[in-house]
Amino acid sequence: MVKEIEIVSEERVAVIGSGNWGTVVARIVGRNVKRYADFHPEVKMWVFEELIKGRKLTEIINQQHENVKYLPGFKIPENVVAVPDLLDATRDATSLIFVVPHQFLHDICNQLKGRTHPKAKAISLVKGFNTTDSGIQPMSQVIEDILQLPVCTLSGANIANEIAEERFSETTIGYKFREEGELFKKLLETHYFRIGIVNDVVGVELCGALKNVIAVGAGIIDGLKMGDNTKAAIIRIGVLEMKSFIQRFYKGAKDETFFQSCGLADVITSCYGGRNRRIAEAHVVTGKSFEQLEKELLNGQKLQGPLTAKELNRVLSHKGLEDEYKLFTAIYRIVYEGLPPRKIFDQIV
Amino acid sequence: MVKEIEIVSEERVAVIGSGNWGTVVARIVGRNVKRYADFHPEVKMWVFEELIKGRKLTEIINQQHENVKYLPGFKIPENVVAVPDLLDATRDATSLIFVVPHQFLHDICNQLKGRTHPKAKAISLVKGFNTTDSGIQPMSQVIEDILQLPVCTLSGANIANEIAEERFSETTIGYKFREEGELFKKLLETHYFRIGIVNDVVGVELCGALKNVIAVGAGIIDGLKMGDNTKAAIIRIGVLEMKSFIQRFYKGAKDETFFQSCGLADVITSCYGGRNRRIAEAHVVTGKSFEQLEKELLNGQKLQGPLTAKELNRVLSHKGLEDEYKLFTAIYRIVYEGLPPRKIFDQIV
Repeated sequence: MVKEIEIVSEERVAVIGSGNWGTVVARIVGRNVKRYADFHPEVKMWVFEELIKGRKLTEIINQQHENVKYLPGFKIPENVVAVPDLLDATRDATSLIFVVPHQFLHDICNQLKGRTHPKAKAISLVKGFNTTDSGIQPMSQVIEDILQLPVCTLSGANIANEIAEERFSETTIGYKFREEGELFKKLLETHYFRIGIVNDVVGVELCGALKNVIAVGAGIIDGLKMGDNTKAAIIRIGVLEMKSFIQRFYKGAKDETFFQSCGLADVITSCYGGRNRRIAEAHVVTGKSFEQLEKELLNGQKLQGPLTAKELNRVLSHKGLEDEYKLFTAIYRIVYEGLPPRKIFDQIV
Repeated sequence: MVKEIEIVSEERVAVIGSGNWGTVVARIVGRNVKRYADFHPEVKMWVFEELIKGRKLTEIINQQHENVKYLPGFKIPENVVAVPDLLDATRDATSLIFVVPHQFLHDICNQLKGRTHPKAKAISLVKGFNTTDSGIQPMSQVIEDILQLPVCTLSGANIANEIAEERFSETTIGYKFREEGELFKKLLETHYFRIGIVNDVVGVELCGALKNVIAVGAGIIDGLKMGDNTKAAIIRIGVLEMKSFIQRFYKGAKDETFFQSCGLADVITSCYGGRNRRIAEAHVVTGKSFEQLEKELLNGQKLQGPLTAKELNRVLSHKGLEDEYKLFTAIYRIVYEGLPPRKIFDQIV
């Protein structure tokens, strides 16, 4: 476990990842480093190289200052430099921002192992989680374990394009060391993207995973056309089960975290928009399986909500706790065991 | 202040009020008293007498077992007896359920003063609040002050007709004496209407009032067409200000209360449905004043949200606290001082 943190007089920033969310973040960071003397004014962005109509994506970004593939229509500040080599991008960086698809994180960390700056610290914007024999492993833990860095996490009600359009929104940073939380807040906050910080890395991150299960529950209620009361009740029960699960299995998760953007707000966003809700509603209305709907509506891509429900259930059934998490268990049974959606109410009473 | 509570071996129940919500509640109570030996099997319902096509409403209810005016289409159990005289309805009752429009409560309590059963206790389902020189007075406090009874309160994400249709929903009872909370839970709970109880009378009740202000904020965001992130952020900030306000001015309001149906769930319901949200949205879209919209869309009836925002602001400005409640203050200024809705974001940052 990492025990120390050191802020240097001129932090150098690297953004690891250049997808939709990564590019939105790089735009914010590019502007912020120019505002504050305590950051080096150049930001390196590691870009997984690909060819767009025969041109390299890094070249396009460095010449046109736009990520034409993942965030077309938005200029990237010129002090953000796209770098195709992971080690070149990160070698000098003291502040690392991880924002890659979670299936690549392990590999990337292994490439970086022993090669990061001695004063490097990190923040994870990676969504999702790892599953291990002992349960659910947060992605920040993967980074910390492999790189032995102090790792913050950022999660909230954040739809990348709404933030690119500079619509008012909020997010949450979970930190272990307060100075690190404040550093990343300074680096990532703008007047339209407000950041709350809380001394709770795992709580913040796991809210981001478990909310997807609640969204499946909300979609089921929408499909049943039960009305506003019922939906609000299901969301509330979901928040309580999420809070209880996280606090039971991860000591140190704070009550306060659930009032942050990563808690309450992200749950609400996911239960009124988003694809977990939408596919669950379609399941109830059409009677098709989630797998079938993923094929038809998401090109076979897997939804996070059902996967997370399965992982939760593995933990809960193993520990004999299904009765204490009735909503999570009912959702699992509806998705994987063919329980008729309408039975959700018998299960949770 | 009331110091004691006594449950009797056979509680006699009176429902004071017979509007839409009162009738829904009378149906539930009528069934429940027959299920449990510790209640007398007859329930008296005080009905403000009126003529419906020349027939007395009490007669219709007692003959047809239906409140044709306020809850048409739903049978009332035959053991619920409509009584036109307030004192006749309540004289023997040890459990009083107040469910009347708040503007009548004071008068009703004055009529009952000194005439209730010596072991009577009460629960308030009255929505709204009184305003006094010292701020906001919960309706349960009005009952307690005048009748010197122990008073619980019930509030939650409860749309009367959805509960009449037996759709799954939840509510919250706030109690001072646990036995009283449990008594009213037994009397009012069904398999589709689940009740949480919490040792916090004022917290439960004031959530029900303050949520209307948050709903106005949500409607403003809907009118501005800002997207899901922004709306979730505003709801979250609203919940935090509601929690802070209640806990600052009413000692003993519990954190837990805000996770109950009366907190989180009722806020969500009101921010996605309901007329405070709707009228606020119309204000932004049409540019018409709230007063004008109340005339056009509500026959001049006053919305709770703007009234509550005004009362809150009276307290906050008097105490120099506007800066700590930026969202409540911004909503007040938009409703009453012509602040352009889009300025809400400058106000809360």
